[in-house]
Amino acid sequence: MTIDPTGPATTSTPAQAGSASALNRLADLTDADRAALGGHRLYDGWATATPHLTDAATKRTRKLVDSLEAAIANSGLQNGGTISFHHHFREGDACLLLVVDTLARMGFEDLTLAGSSLNSCHARLVDHIRSGVIARIYTSGMRGGLAKEISSGLMDEPINIHSHGGRVALIQSGELKVDVAFLGVPACDAMGNANGVTGRSRCGSLGYAEVDAEHAGCVVLLTEEIVPYPHMPASITQNQVDMIVRVDTVGDPAKISVGAARITSNPRELLIARHAADVIEHSGYFTDGFSMQTGSGASATAATRFLESRLRRHGVTAGFALGGITAGIVDLHEKGLIDKILDVQSFDTVAGRSLADNPGHREISADEYASPLGKGAAVDDLDLVILSALEIDLNFNVNVVTGSDGVMMGASGGHCDTAAGANLSIIVGPLIRGRIPTVVSRVTTLVTPGENVGVLVTDHGIAVHPSRPEVRDRLVAAGLPVTTIEELHARATSIAGTPAPIEFDDRIVGLIRYRDGSVIDVVRQVAGGRR
Amino acid sequence: MTIDPTGPATTSTPAQAGSASALNRLADLTDADRAALGGHRLYDGWATATPHLTDAATKRTRKLVDSLEAAIANSGLQNGGTISFHHHFREGDACLLLVVDTLARMGFEDLTLAGSSLNSCHARLVDHIRSGVIARIYTSGMRGGLAKEISSGLMDEPINIHSHGGRVALIQSGELKVDVAFLGVPACDAMGNANGVTGRSRCGSLGYAEVDAEHAGCVVLLTEEIVPYPHMPASITQNQVDMIVRVDTVGDPAKISVGAARITSNPRELLIARHAADVIEHSGYFTDGFSMQTGSGASATAATRFLESRLRRHGVTAGFALGGITAGIVDLHEKGLIDKILDVQSFDTVAGRSLADNPGHREISADEYASPLGKGAAVDDLDLVILSALEIDLNFNVNVVTGSDGVMMGASGGHCDTAAGANLSIIVGPLIRGRIPTVVSRVTTLVTPGENVGVLVTDHGIAVHPSRPEVRDRLVAAGLPVTTIEELHARATSIAGTPAPIEFDDRIVGLIRYRDGSVIDVVRQVAGGRR
Repeated sequence: MTIDPTGPATTSTPAQAGSASALNRLADLTDADRAALGGHRLYDGWATATPHLTDAATKRTRKLVDSLEAAIANSGLQNGGTISFHHHFREGDACLLLVVDTLARMGFEDLTLAGSSLNSCHARLVDHIRSGVIARIYTSGMRGGLAKEISSGLMDEPINIHSHGGRVALIQSGELKVDVAFLGVPACDAMGNANGVTGRSRCGSLGYAEVDAEHAGCVVLLTEEIVPYPHMPASITQNQVDMIVRVDTVGDPAKISVGAARITSNPRELLIARHAADVIEHSGYFTDGFSMQTGSGASATAATRFLESRLRRHGVTAGFALGGITAGIVDLHEKGLIDKILDVQSFDTVAGRSLADNPGHREISADEYASPLGKGAAVDDLDLVILSALEIDLNFNVNVVTGSDGVMMGASGGHCDTAAGANLSIIVGPLIRGRIPTVVSRVTTLVTPGENVGVLVTDHGIAVHPSRPEVRDRLVAAGLPVTTIEELHARATSIAGTPAPIEFDDRIVGLIRYRDGSVIDVVRQVAGGRR
Repeated sequence: MTIDPTGPATTSTPAQAGSASALNRLADLTDADRAALGGHRLYDGWATATPHLTDAATKRTRKLVDSLEAAIANSGLQNGGTISFHHHFREGDACLLLVVDTLARMGFEDLTLAGSSLNSCHARLVDHIRSGVIARIYTSGMRGGLAKEISSGLMDEPINIHSHGGRVALIQSGELKVDVAFLGVPACDAMGNANGVTGRSRCGSLGYAEVDAEHAGCVVLLTEEIVPYPHMPASITQNQVDMIVRVDTVGDPAKISVGAARITSNPRELLIARHAADVIEHSGYFTDGFSMQTGSGASATAATRFLESRLRRHGVTAGFALGGITAGIVDLHEKGLIDKILDVQSFDTVAGRSLADNPGHREISADEYASPLGKGAAVDDLDLVILSALEIDLNFNVNVVTGSDGVMMGASGGHCDTAAGANLSIIVGPLIRGRIPTVVSRVTTLVTPGENVGVLVTDHGIAVHPSRPEVRDRLVAAGLPVTTIEELHARATSIAGTPAPIEFDDRIVGLIRYRDGSVIDVVRQVAGGRR
């Protein structure tokens, strides 16, 4: 055949029903030609897949929705569906209840709530559970009134407590399918490019939110401000965002460092923090380029305050700090004592500011941070992590979820993720907390297996897991107050008495999901709750 | 029931076959308890999902593979599988043939090669097609010996020519499933955090590679250098990378700006570029905050040289420049005349350097750039794009793939993507190229539909699409040499004569896939090729 450059021009007519193609040149295809097309459909107009591009006046504002109600209505959310949120504003979050209140008004019910974590500020969720709007919960943890009510049997189905890496794994494995993610950001452009470091209410890293932005069927941004396109840097990118709703406030950054991320001036917590720094110094991992993380909890975050002098004395620079990032970590970074920061969650406004300003301070998603089902998480490269505990038992198993009364009051967080990845996990905590021993023979709830714990630092001495004799020898040689976990247990019991058994009903109110999705323990209803 | 903090400690024993759990506390679960677990498996050891973490000596180097052969053997690639590559090194690429040579030596056959584009440097692929190693090809385009051979009927199956956005759409739709992506990077750390702006052979943006890193079943990085963890910034992140192989060279950045991305000093090309700048200035879109892209091709990229004086004269600053980024764009950015740069591909080493240095110069993936099936591409926000053409017909339909002899010699690139997204597409090209008219009545191959073309700029005048009378009026008012496409066609014919029809065989050797995956045209075997 010939193609004649002087032949009839190619024209395009509007596609018609039953017409495979609107291009006259495609109408010439023979049956043999069509067989060679491999079943691919023929072109039927440039805007078939992108009808929004046909209207130049609206194509750049098409994601902006006037109200949360409209966004929800457009999202395709159904009763029984799954909604998600991030907890980067921690106790300052203003998005979750705004959305769930709206869903309740719109008559939704039987929803699964998959927040990356829940806090005391979410106590009013109790009403929405009672009325049937929220029927199932996935979260890293709970605190306050919500946690008390759920511990007392508020919900028909057990809640799922996951770690930060475990949440990503539940999404990657397909168990947790988020239909609509409602993600609060301080500012974004009209196409959805967003970060947590510009605008009025800056939360810093959006590391947890990034996973939802990537995986949710529909992504709705709640933002305080629409800024000119293209907004950069972009933690959440425009190819992930479906709709954008302006709201008055997405959260109060001042309340990020309230609660578990608070700064302590308590002398006992500072003593423990100093001992934790001593352990780091003499652990055998305190060499140039070492890596570290400090988890939430006052003593854990305070340990960084005691590191500067030790780093300078030894002429050591840390290669990187990971995880929830604090002002203390930023201070060491800006002094050149920590080379790089990988930030999945900014624990205070200083960390958020640093993320914006310091090129060596990089935001990472929760997948990069800790997923055990991903292709390799940053926790795998940790040398040292300092973690808190509500209880620790004689085999070093740790509970960070339930209090001594059996009521849920904490969060799994990155506890078991970092403990599994790090070369040495250091647990810090007072021996006795409000007349209740921290060291027990059996933890009320098991979150992190003792095999992944190296050292316990208390205000009454330091215990080393028997599998780490080399670490014990180093700490003893350094003159640190090393004892055994059995001795710490005996001392706790002698001071505070033998703790009374906790009464539970048989009913299971919570599943503790290990980072790989398996059930590592269950939480039962506290006695006297609803039946 | 009670949980007694003085009760027996929780112990963990190695999991045994048939044992649901190795934790004694889980062994206590009743049948009713197990029913409440929702079918989730019980914990059976902390390292079940992460066996690599049990060996502290190797856990951080587990992705490093000694040889390409070993990486391929570990990748799970099978005959009939799909392999992918990026073309950020353009004519300097050293990875694709290295890998395919190795696959050939290992005896692989019947593979689908899905490079983001192919260039003249890949001519030797002909041997691997002939020997059956490569059986199918997806690419944005082809040049040189490979293109000639395929046009002459080298392959049994037609190749698929896609746009850059269309490639992402083929991946997102599930048609193109990449089994193993082999991605060359100048440097990465041992966990796979990689970018194109550090190391010896810097290619700049890794925007095309990012899509493969996200979607491929197995991702193998080829790198010249392993740098300390954590490498940042990370265009490709550790949670996307399976294996890392050190190679001597991944590519020669000096050859990025050879060929289609070359810098011109040809007076005719510069004349056209200046006219294109005139069109931009008087298009109606030349207002503060406007956005623009210059595609590959000498006149298109050269247009930026003529913009500075126009921007200064009008006191206009561009909001952003998009796409393949050149030194000319960077120059305007660093002079404050273009506020931001969105870079999917660095067209020269200056652009790569700028990406590293300028915080307003951001890397974007091909998905963010141009996918019509994603949630919103940057091309949607373009005001103006300057694009090349091999042929343009009386209805402004454009051919950028086949030459006047019917042989494939170009690439679809972002042509139809940007034309669809931009408010005004400006095509630039000489009226006559080597005695062959550019303006024809019927393009040999249809790549971009004329409805998406606004203006044609040639060295013999400017034609405006009849659907844009307001643009025509503005250009006429500005005194630009506006004519009609019919007049340009007549002039071309009067100078160069009427082009002879091209002889083709019936056999289809290539499918032109529109950005949404539909077939917008076919390429037939040039006459005299193999039957």
